[in-house]
Amino acid sequence: MTDTALLVIDMFNDYRHEDAEKLAPSVSDIIEPVAGLVSAARKRDDVDLIYINDNYGDFTANQEDLVRRALDGERPELVEPIVPQDGARFLQKVRHSAFYATSLAYLLRQLDPERLILTGQVTEQCILYTALDAYIRHFQVIVPANGVAHIDEELGKAALQMMERNMRATILPAEKCLD
Amino acid sequence: MTDTALLVIDMFNDYRHEDAEKLAPSVSDIIEPVAGLVSAARKRDDVDLIYINDNYGDFTANQEDLVRRALDGERPELVEPIVPQDGARFLQKVRHSAFYATSLAYLLRQLDPERLILTGQVTEQCILYTALDAYIRHFQVIVPANGVAHIDEELGKAALQMMERNMRATILPAEKCLD
Amino acid sequence: MTDTALLVIDMFNDYRHEDAEKLAPSVSDIIEPVAGLVSAARKRDDVDLIYINDNYGDFTANQEDLVRRALDGERPELVEPIVPQDGARFLQKVRHSAFYATSLAYLLRQLDPERLILTGQVTEQCILYTALDAYIRHFQVIVPANGVAHIDEELGKAALQMMERNMRATILPAEKCLD
Amino acid sequence: MTDTALLVIDMFNDYRHEDAEKLAPSVSDIIEPVAGLVSAARKRDDVDLIYINDNYGDFTANQEDLVRRALDGERPELVEPIVPQDGARFLQKVRHSAFYATSLAYLLRQLDPERLILTGQVTEQCILYTALDAYIRHFQVIVPANGVAHIDEELGKAALQMMERNMRATILPAEKCLD
Repeated sequence: MTDTALLVIDMFNDYRHEDAEKLAPSVSDIIEPVAGLVSAARKRDDVDLIYINDNYGDFTANQEDLVRRALDGERPELVEPIVPQDGARFLQKVRHSAFYATSLAYLLRQLDPERLILTGQVTEQCILYTALDAYIRHFQVIVPANGVAHIDEELGKAALQMMERNMRATILPAEKCLD
Repeated sequence: MTDTALLVIDMFNDYRHEDAEKLAPSVSDIIEPVAGLVSAARKRDDVDLIYINDNYGDFTANQEDLVRRALDGERPELVEPIVPQDGARFLQKVRHSAFYATSLAYLLRQLDPERLILTGQVTEQCILYTALDAYIRHFQVIVPANGVAHIDEELGKAALQMMERNMRATILPAEKCLD
Repeated sequence: MTDTALLVIDMFNDYRHEDAEKLAPSVSDIIEPVAGLVSAARKRDDVDLIYINDNYGDFTANQEDLVRRALDGERPELVEPIVPQDGARFLQKVRHSAFYATSLAYLLRQLDPERLILTGQVTEQCILYTALDAYIRHFQVIVPANGVAHIDEELGKAALQMMERNMRATILPAEKCLD
Repeated sequence: MTDTALLVIDMFNDYRHEDAEKLAPSVSDIIEPVAGLVSAARKRDDVDLIYINDNYGDFTANQEDLVRRALDGERPELVEPIVPQDGARFLQKVRHSAFYATSLAYLLRQLDPERLILTGQVTEQCILYTALDAYIRHFQVIVPANGVAHIDEELGKAALQMMERNMRATILPAEKCLD
């Protein structure tokens, strides 16, 4: 059993989609704290790092394809700091929640961490939905307020409130998540 | 194939839990529109009425138990108008989303409605989560703004915005949902 | 955590379906050992008794309906000895595996037994499929050879071999299952 | 909607595991018919080819890793004839059934084929379990008798009988599956 699983959600994005212009500045604000968490997780034996990313409907893509397309996109500087190293766990998802139609729940049962840290994008969408699916499976969830990016600032705030009040998530600065 | 499935979510509540005092006034506001939808659904061949309710952790309860306990609770007047008639479809759920660990997705594949109407409680909790799980399964969702009850007014509003913007739900007055 | 969960699968049957004439004699052979297991489970604090039964496509039925219809069927003597007492856990399923589209996996995560005993019918169908779904979820499975009924004797034997060899199930006499 | 989805299950195997010596001769018998099906599927617009393979517990592997390890294994001649071409759909699974903890059901709902052809290994294990999970989801299943490989000949035969009798699968020669 490990202490903690760090989930890095949907950070491999080419920023060419609708709403990308609203999203990218928020990702720009979080990329440093997220990269800090990833870097810390790599050094620690008690933290499992798991990338999970949408396949954007392409069932022929492998993990490298998803990373490369993001690096070839509009905002490579929001991707480079967290590119997976060899030997990183990497799951593909097909819809918004990281739990839906993926092996994440199975993998987490095997790793059996005490808590999940959710980072990435989008606070009021995939982060919120993944937090919910973690909560109904009785995982303890931690969300770094400065490690999740929103499209809509007000809905992002509401999503954090929902996670805290209704899903018993702990909202912390990224710097405190691995203390 | 039917046109529409009307889901009545978590209305069998004894209102003895935490937050019941915040929730009950909002349910009081919606009970008439919800009862109107239930009554209309009963009369129409093209609408499938499905009750789905939490079992509150009691795996020995049957549907009648859940209804009776609600009628014996603090606010029977919020329960009586929508008590199931004989021959109503009734599913039990164990966590927040009506899709999690239930046969709802299976039943809906069999009934194959074009759209789902979500009514009941709580807007920013089970309604939101059920809307999400419907959306990721590509169901078209309709939510009557006056047919869903909240605990927190601001989060309830944010949840409706999330459903409309991010889950492509249609928000309508209850009176228009079955037009 | 309990030691053991005893699953009683699909014993509420009216024996009016295709293959009922082949199935009933085999159920007749197992009803006494199954009733013995049920009776023992009721007396023991370390055994969780869980009935799980097909709803035969009727989403309006409650647990009592399913039991009553079986008692009103062709072979009430194969039903009476294991009728649930008040306060028994009872889940409904909609297809062959007891795990598919039900809350069984969730309930078992909550109860957290060390092992599952599978009894009931049909060895080469619902028992086999439930054993598989238990195995892929890493539950330890015990099957009483004289506590599961078949339609086809050869396929029933093959199913027991599959469970033993490929799903690491332990095949035991019913009398030994709760030792 | 396409007519048919061809699933190629667990053919990327290094044949270094327990039972590999029993399995490989049977795979040797089926590799030509399976390669014939794959080749035919590639040429036809009405057939969706989907590879699905176990990740053998390695959540860091991508599709190319799984293929390369099989090519570097004991029996490359059982792998080479069906190596995926660029642009092939490829899913990873984590346990026996191709449906468990994967996006297969989701992908199939999107592609909406009329029927599934199951090929690969092992007849009495992953093929049987995938056939079951397809059947409970109401997919029509076709299994080419000379396109699935067994470890145990008797259990393989029993598995084919179970699929035919109890899961309404059609058992055909591979040559007839795409007629």
